[in-house]
Amino acid sequence: MKQDNLSYKMYLVTDLFGGTEEELLGKVEKALEGGVTLVQLREKEADGKEFYERSLRLKKLLDRFHVPLIINDRVDVALAVGASGVHVGQDDLPLKVVRSLVGDMIVGVSVRTVQEAQKAVEDGADYIGVGSVFPTSTKLDAKGITKEELIEITESVRIPAVAIGGITAENIEKLNGTGIRGAAVVSAILKSQDPKKAAEELNEKLVLQ
Amino acid sequence: MKQDNLSYKMYLVTDLFGGTEEELLGKVEKALEGGVTLVQLREKEADGKEFYERSLRLKKLLDRFHVPLIINDRVDVALAVGASGVHVGQDDLPLKVVRSLVGDMIVGVSVRTVQEAQKAVEDGADYIGVGSVFPTSTKLDAKGITKEELIEITESVRIPAVAIGGITAENIEKLNGTGIRGAAVVSAILKSQDPKKAAEELNEKLVLQ
Ligand code: NI
Repeated sequence: MKQDNLSYKMYLVTDLFGGTEEELLGKVEKALEGGVTLVQLREKEADGKEFYERSLRLKKLLDRFHVPLIINDRVDVALAVGASGVHVGQDDLPLKVVRSLVGDMIVGVSVRTVQEAQKAVEDGADYIGVGSVFPTSTKLDAKGITKEELIEITESVRIPAVAIGGITAENIEKLNGTGIRGAAVVSAILKSQDPKKAAEELNEKLVLQ
Repeated sequence: MKQDNLSYKMYLVTDLFGGTEEELLGKVEKALEGGVTLVQLREKEADGKEFYERSLRLKKLLDRFHVPLIINDRVDVALAVGASGVHVGQDDLPLKVVRSLVGDMIVGVSVRTVQEAQKAVEDGADYIGVGSVFPTSTKLDAKGITKEELIEITESVRIPAVAIGGITAENIEKLNGTGIRGAAVVSAILKSQDPKKAAEELNEKLVLQ
């Protein structure tokens, strides 16, 4: 699915944060009402069956809002549920392999350097996730990159770049003017008491060129 | 790949046991010389990239012996490396989904009851793995089944059944007469000082009807 009208602006990445799936779906629904444009389901612990079933339920919700579902890491799950795309990191299946498996599905890849960004383009990525822009504890191994590095990366490729890592209402404006096409957010929305308002606020503060 | 001449008799399931990949490949090569007929790569900890790369190296070795490679759990990895098949448990992607993704690849599924075995057949499995026949610590959650249950299961389906779980040279003969078409072995081969001899001995002691 190459969606030319696809917006990466407010990209929600899920995390159960020790809660239930029902709680997660409730929060995601609020976040969608608040203007989230894309949702990635990330499941680092779940077995395949659980991942698959949660993906189906999340997709059903997203379909109501016409918001695309991106599956993290498990290409088979993405294919199985008919997701709009798949997102892989540098330690996941190689991008070229992913592309060969998914045809024209959206494929995103996490990068930290200009070299990785350019390799992503070469290997067929539709977008890159760049981070961690504000190092956080969500991903313990997420290495930080500076604002200058972020700009260098966004300028080095023609595909959309999405910033990720520790983005909150307090720091998101620092990303304005960096050339990104969107911000990927986890805690700032899902840990908020009011995910709808949180998404709206983040959306407002992020100004894309 | 429906291989009518496929033998499930001596089915090696891998485990690194804390060793290196090089050590594993060395042991698998010896085991192949000892008559292993099928190899499953099981990676519960590895990231996608590592799983993929190890699969490619293992497949290269198996191809020399014309022995099929079965990938555990990750259907995407199986597709990516052109494996002969994929094996899933009850907590992995549902069998029907797996079948729809892999076409005519060999698909195996772990079962513990007649009901699960018959469901496996309905959902398109090519073979079933039945166990744990001799409960062990390799899979901490493996529940034991009795010899009578094993016989009941093998008699309930027409597809090949492979016994798994704690099978050693000391107990493999107890499986004779149960209607299985093979034994899946991990430690008894890979923890042996002489994997070739271990495979030969197991192979000799297991008498299929
Ligand atoms: Ni499409």
